[in-house]
Amino acid sequence: MLAAVLHGAKDLRLETRPLPGLPPGMVRLRVRRVGICGSDMHYFADGYIGVFVPSQPFVMGHELTADVAAVADDVTAPAVGARVTVNPARACGFCAYCKGGRGNLCRRTIMLGSASTKPPTDGAMAQYVTVRADQCHALPAAMEDGVGAMMEPLAVALHAVQRAGAVSGKTVLVTGGGQIGLLALLVARAFGATPVALSDVVAARCQAARDLGADAVLDPAAPNLAEQIQALTGDGFDVVIEASGAPPALRQAFDLVRPGGTLVQVGSPGKADVPLPANLLMIREIQYLGSFRYTNVYDEAIRLVTAGRVKVQPLISRVFLLAEVGAAMAQAFDKDRVIKVQIAINQESSA
Amino acid sequence: MLAAVLHGAKDLRLETRPLPGLPPGMVRLRVRRVGICGSDMHYFADGYIGVFVPSQPFVMGHELTADVAAVADDVTAPAVGARVTVNPARACGFCAYCKGGRGNLCRRTIMLGSASTKPPTDGAMAQYVTVRADQCHALPAAMEDGVGAMMEPLAVALHAVQRAGAVSGKTVLVTGGGQIGLLALLVARAFGATPVALSDVVAARCQAARDLGADAVLDPAAPNLAEQIQALTGDGFDVVIEASGAPPALRQAFDLVRPGGTLVQVGSPGKADVPLPANLLMIREIQYLGSFRYTNVYDEAIRLVTAGRVKVQPLISRVFLLAEVGAAMAQAFDKDRVIKVQIAINQESSA
Amino acid sequence: MLAAVLHGAKDLRLETRPLPGLPPGMVRLRVRRVGICGSDMHYFADGYIGVFVPSQPFVMGHELTADVAAVADDVTAPAVGARVTVNPARACGFCAYCKGGRGNLCRRTIMLGSASTKPPTDGAMAQYVTVRADQCHALPAAMEDGVGAMMEPLAVALHAVQRAGAVSGKTVLVTGGGQIGLLALLVARAFGATPVALSDVVAARCQAARDLGADAVLDPAAPNLAEQIQALTGDGFDVVIEASGAPPALRQAFDLVRPGGTLVQVGSPGKADVPLPANLLMIREIQYLGSFRYTNVYDEAIRLVTAGRVKVQPLISRVFLLAEVGAAMAQAFDKDRVIKVQIAINQESSA
Amino acid sequence: MLAAVLHGAKDLRLETRPLPGLPPGMVRLRVRRVGICGSDMHYFADGYIGVFVPSQPFVMGHELTADVAAVADDVTAPAVGARVTVNPARACGFCAYCKGGRGNLCRRTIMLGSASTKPPTDGAMAQYVTVRADQCHALPAAMEDGVGAMMEPLAVALHAVQRAGAVSGKTVLVTGGGQIGLLALLVARAFGATPVALSDVVAARCQAARDLGADAVLDPAAPNLAEQIQALTGDGFDVVIEASGAPPALRQAFDLVRPGGTLVQVGSPGKADVPLPANLLMIREIQYLGSFRYTNVYDEAIRLVTAGRVKVQPLISRVFLLAEVGAAMAQAFDKDRVIKVQIAINQESSA
Repeated sequence: MLAAVLHGAKDLRLETRPLPGLPPGMVRLRVRRVGICGSDMHYFADGYIGVFVPSQPFVMGHELTADVAAVADDVTAPAVGARVTVNPARACGFCAYCKGGRGNLCRRTIMLGSASTKPPTDGAMAQYVTVRADQCHALPAAMEDGVGAMMEPLAVALHAVQRAGAVSGKTVLVTGGGQIGLLALLVARAFGATPVALSDVVAARCQAARDLGADAVLDPAAPNLAEQIQALTGDGFDVVIEASGAPPALRQAFDLVRPGGTLVQVGSPGKADVPLPANLLMIREIQYLGSFRYTNVYDEAIRLVTAGRVKVQPLISRVFLLAEVGAAMAQAFDKDRVIKVQIAINQESSA
Repeated sequence: MLAAVLHGAKDLRLETRPLPGLPPGMVRLRVRRVGICGSDMHYFADGYIGVFVPSQPFVMGHELTADVAAVADDVTAPAVGARVTVNPARACGFCAYCKGGRGNLCRRTIMLGSASTKPPTDGAMAQYVTVRADQCHALPAAMEDGVGAMMEPLAVALHAVQRAGAVSGKTVLVTGGGQIGLLALLVARAFGATPVALSDVVAARCQAARDLGADAVLDPAAPNLAEQIQALTGDGFDVVIEASGAPPALRQAFDLVRPGGTLVQVGSPGKADVPLPANLLMIREIQYLGSFRYTNVYDEAIRLVTAGRVKVQPLISRVFLLAEVGAAMAQAFDKDRVIKVQIAINQESSA
Repeated sequence: MLAAVLHGAKDLRLETRPLPGLPPGMVRLRVRRVGICGSDMHYFADGYIGVFVPSQPFVMGHELTADVAAVADDVTAPAVGARVTVNPARACGFCAYCKGGRGNLCRRTIMLGSASTKPPTDGAMAQYVTVRADQCHALPAAMEDGVGAMMEPLAVALHAVQRAGAVSGKTVLVTGGGQIGLLALLVARAFGATPVALSDVVAARCQAARDLGADAVLDPAAPNLAEQIQALTGDGFDVVIEASGAPPALRQAFDLVRPGGTLVQVGSPGKADVPLPANLLMIREIQYLGSFRYTNVYDEAIRLVTAGRVKVQPLISRVFLLAEVGAAMAQAFDKDRVIKVQIAINQESSA
Repeated sequence: MLAAVLHGAKDLRLETRPLPGLPPGMVRLRVRRVGICGSDMHYFADGYIGVFVPSQPFVMGHELTADVAAVADDVTAPAVGARVTVNPARACGFCAYCKGGRGNLCRRTIMLGSASTKPPTDGAMAQYVTVRADQCHALPAAMEDGVGAMMEPLAVALHAVQRAGAVSGKTVLVTGGGQIGLLALLVARAFGATPVALSDVVAARCQAARDLGADAVLDPAAPNLAEQIQALTGDGFDVVIEASGAPPALRQAFDLVRPGGTLVQVGSPGKADVPLPANLLMIREIQYLGSFRYTNVYDEAIRLVTAGRVKVQPLISRVFLLAEVGAAMAQAFDKDRVIKVQIAINQESSA
């Protein structure tokens, strides 16, 4: 089969590889569409991410739609021929985190298309990929391949919003208009938060937020920001979803959340400690909560999109063919022009 | 001032009464609009409700929009001239329930337009009514009087849905298409529940549910009900809002909620005990929760309506003038034709 | 190996059977102690429980302490020689309930010593039994075998108390002084509930509750019950754990819980519907919650007992040898004299 | 009456003052015992606390036991002669925070013995003090005056532990062995947390923690701290109560809490921002929660102490008479020798 193999920083090669195996419990998928995630871009740019240094070349890609091509003998579902999206995080299923409903914290998770294991685990920028049967979630016939491949980032946003508890009827600010921030905006609106505001410093992202229905778009450097927020919310936002990972945005978020409010960290703030107002958190009883990947939210994500409550299609900016993977990766870095770049695989065209 | 005074069963008289007083902490309101609630209809039909037997004639009405006509010397807000809606349940503010955020359980609550106190507390089917300052919630200029007077029943529905926790992305069934059921349908949809189904036996209410955007309308007697629900939800509804108060609907609800799911009782099931499947509740870990009036949700209700997330105008079927209060009351009983009947007061017309 | 095999109602035979197998993922245990549960007694008395009719003779027993005798090749923990207790409910690990942290609702659960599967799943009233590796929980050296075999009923009680949320500092009533009720009493006290009361009609159980530290023991038929409860709690109990399964106790519990309070159903009320005050539940916003088996609470149960916070030893009334299984079963039915009867297996004496 | 009046930094004078007034809704208390809090010590040392600069001399003291000496005409409870402790934070009762059960966030709170209002609000280091009727909580006859005056700091600790949700059966670390930390230790133990550890750098506080029943006392600078914590907890503490306010202790706490765990900030970290590991919080889904004063926990605190679940008497190190207020204040600063210093008022002796 054909696969895009990462050999090192900026060294992504199209190669022929043997089909992946099919051990008990697993299914082999014929990939239809794969999205390029920020972490793929980090691997591509640097050759590694933090402590995740690939011990050998590997295949990236963990946002996908695929057809089930074969299943191991002991697998009862899904069936060969089913079209599915995939939860790329294969938690062990048996540790205290898994049994407690927090499989996203399982220390034995095997992540698709990632160097977090040794050797790395091959992902979906290839014609075929193998996953455990329960990682597959059936897609309705009406859902396009590209939309199916958006279920993974949507799951990240959905989980982040759910970490805040019930946002319905609450005032919500999303800081950062990257793809997770924009998806969080869509989710918060679909969940009845009002108003839902988004703040960013990049004009293109602010425009995207407006196009996607933000009730307000804020400039974090506006001199009258406090007045704007008072007009929108009275006493500050009930919930802030910090999706930028930028330390100044994070610091500012503590001033924008109301007493008793909730601040969810879903953006990656980087390794360095960030100076934060612990005293303010105490006297205002702010809740500052981490959000990491997602728990079991795929079926819910699919249902929300199928019902038209969350429309993710507008976030898909460009689709390339697997043969064009280099151009696709280059395009992904043009943050002023694209939100999500995807690659069509085993397809005749990217249209 | 002019007031509609209930003297006994079916004995509602338009009379001239002195203006209500203005003790410390209170405000006097000039009523613009008042809705007729199911409890008003019970008082009118029977002269009493359960143990609430009026010790003297009184004025009903607790769903209202009004202008602030005067305020006691110690009141700082609202200001004279403000247009407000009113939370008719005046909790004491100092008991353990009030301090714990559950003022709706306060045993010292004084309810507007109700015989739960001795003497009864006069309500808003009159030109003027007096309430405590904090019972008032300012209305945006763009909100119509009729919509403002719907904030009370909307608060009931909002609280019932919130009792279920986060319904966003969940499957929800509302049993009973009366005004509270229809409002709960609107709220659940606005909160991102999907699908939201409603069941009723009255054709007009089923049609209203369809018109208001129900994803499915179910006939509780349909022979293939189980199949319909499996198709909609898989394993049963995550949440059922029991808004009918009908014992058979309540009993059936236990079969329609999924294991681990939540059943909220907001309809009044009447005084008699209802045979319920306690064993099923146990082995499926169902949560069966009462919902009574509302806690502090008025500002949220106003915000949701102002933002267009919940549209209550279609539920207002007819508006009468205070002089026509008898006709208004008669119309309210025609459940096949009307959802909400209101009375315009201190207005030149009911248009 | 030797096993006590149930052939039908009151037909329990000691037989020689082949050792259980050891498929991948499984461990073979050499049993040290097994407790007799109420469900074992039902199987023994009637030959079946409800719809669970054994399709062939089987071995009962699901409360145990055992040594790990052998492990399948792919098992990394526990190690051969470890002394463990066992979670007898083997959930699938991959369905939505399992991934959501509610494995106790998993429809594919395989229960040790139960006829809920076809064929039945053999349990621990035998010299050896096979379970999945993750069902084992290591016991500290200082914990006696008998105490280890109490972790299963303790898990039931622990889960029931946890279903009520935080009971610390709250007023709690346990209705029913059987073993689950008494364990719930111990757990509620260990969790800082105060006062913790227990009600029962059987004098021996009331005495047991007193001996175990109940702050009050109530006679549900006392004419001044309401006064007693007012003196203990003011407005009623914050939490009632219904552990009797008796419909009159359940009905009465609704009158004893305070407005906004929580009622947990852990006793089995039987198949028939129970007349319950749905109206009271509504106007008092009572939460009525089912509790079924347990989720992932074994390590917590072991930690609480090891730290001396919950002392279960006094509940173990009698210990027999496997050869005396008939006498053990007979003794278990003497509810006035015993709480828990256990069987020592692979031991030289039952002392 | 006699009162200790703070005129400025280290300028505390015993003076004769007129009796405080008795407006509607208020009660006048004859003080029996008052404790010296850390905030009183800050006012004494510096003359102010942060932005709370007294606009005129005032009386400190907000931890008290007192007799009701007189009540305003409209007050129905408490009665003259009742012995009470006092919640010194008088929230407005009507704002969204108060109605939502979070009166501790009410912006209109009037705090006893504090310069947070202009003019300052006189407190209880005087023979008489006036409070609103609902601020009083009746004390059982058996509770000593000194213990009654500990209900305020106990309420702080109780609220902090409750902010973490249910700690029962969980592993808990308290960082900082001052009076709030030691009280949090007592509460966590009473609530069934196990083990409960405390860390501090001061030997006397470590000894106090041991005397009060800590399961482990940790030296935050121990080179093998990680090993100690692994032995105690496995994967880190479920809950950390940060009661030191020391930035290094706070920073370290993030490394000691397990994935998915909760960190409660109840110590005052000071005005400066503290560098914190936002990335770690994200990938481990840590919950970092502020805790400020207390909500409605006084009755619960009294019940826990009355039932013997929490024993606060050992924390009372020294009692002085009002005439010795200068010596009392000086003693309070000797942190190696005392935990809580109190002042007996209107008493013949301090024994």
